Amino acid sequence: MSKRLLYQYPLCPFCRKVRLVLFEKGLEYETVLEKPWLRRAGFLALNPAGEVPVLVEEGGDRVLSGHSAICEFLDEIKTQPSLFGDEPYVRAEARRLAGWFDVKFFNEVHQYIMEEIVYKRLTGRGEPDSRVIRAGRTNLLSHLKYITWLVERRNFLAGRSISLADFSAAAQLSVLDYLGEVPWEKYPEAKAWYAIVKSRPSFQPILKERILEISPPSYYANLDF
Amino acid sequence: MSKRLLYQYPLCPFCRKVRLVLFEKGLEYETVLEKPWLRRAGFLALNPAGEVPVLVEEGGDRVLSGHSAICEFLDEIKTQPSLFGDEPYVRAEARRLAGWFDVKFFNEVHQYIMEEIVYKRLTGRGEPDSRVIRAGRTNLLSHLKYITWLVERRNFLAGRSISLADFSAAAQLSVLDYLGEVPWEKYPEAKAWYAIVKSRPSFQPILKERILEISPPSYYANLDF
Repeated sequence: MSKRLLYQYPLCPFCRKVRLVLFEKGLEYETVLEKPWLRRAGFLALNPAGEVPVLVEEGGDRVLSGHSAICEFLDEIKTQPSLFGDEPYVRAEARRLAGWFDVKFFNEVHQYIMEEIVYKRLTGRGEPDSRVIRAGRTNLLSHLKYITWLVERRNFLAGRSISLADFSAAAQLSVLDYLGEVPWEKYPEAKAWYAIVKSRPSFQPILKERILEISPPSYYANLDF
Repeated sequence: MSKRLLYQYPLCPFCRKVRLVLFEKGLEYETVLEKPWLRRAGFLALNPAGEVPVLVEEGGDRVLSGHSAICEFLDEIKTQPSLFGDEPYVRAEARRLAGWFDVKFFNEVHQYIMEEIVYKRLTGRGEPDSRVIRAGRTNLLSHLKYITWLVERRNFLAGRSISLADFSAAAQLSVLDYLGEVPWEKYPEAKAWYAIVKSRPSFQPILKERILEISPPSYYANLDF
């Protein structure tokens, strides 16, 4: 039987989130490098949205896309450790915050900074617009303040236990951290929270990955950064 | 004990989706009109994202935001009728397509058309940009083609039974339909699917609602449109 395959791109925060979940659940998989902007026909046949991640389950007949749908699926086929917690309201809070980083952080920070600094270069779509990058950097500070506010009140973002909210947020931040874009020193509480998530075994394969065209700062994979 | 309250704005597709789910689940609620762009302090205290919908459960001590988190919560506290189906892969397909319309359709169509035609006017942020509106209308055709492709193969968008995918898609389309923006006549299969969803009892309170500043076309609430 063929193995579980994850079509992914290393700087995609949603791919990183799904990889964290797969590892935390103890589910084995292999990665396939996919550059979604190439719009490869074979990949579009797997996901008409043309987006990574795409998960092909063992045997190859079940193809899943949509990062939220994939995470919910993995939590259903392997319920422990739970991604959301036990009680419906706690689970709603974990999903609210996972959605916060998947949508709001992605739209307000990732799209501004990564699109300008990385994807324009990789896809040859012109020069970075420094005003857009500055707007993304300003927005990033609001999110770091919100993380600070949360972890001053809770062990993890959504409550007492680690949840998909933490994986979602840490995945987003880790991509920006690869570019040295996160001003950790100004947000020590957020940094302490990130250090805990970053130290998990599930994070290590992600921190070791390098993108040929771009090198991370020296502290990126350092767990005592 | 106080009633369940939904803070909502009538032209918000995510509010419409949550209202459909509440009705389909047989859960009673009252609506509170909230114009999120006013950034009312009392509302920001309920949801720091400043976005509708926000659900305040009976008793008032449990506040939920994030439309996906709210729908998942409602499906957990009232499991029947299921929003996703019974089998994990079927559930993943329903969630994939709900996400497709919540994110992709919203970003590529709603944001272009509604922002230019409605929200610029309501918030006094300048004149509509006709190039953006045209781009949104072009993108809408791709989504209507995809709905056509799906319903040629399935009873409902995600499979044999109605699911959150249908409520999510119909909620998005119904908002554009209020402006007469959906070229139904060119997409008869998509129209036939929408007619079925639109005819459900859960849809009737939504179709009756009017926004003071904007009138819908004559066929908008007609079930044999």
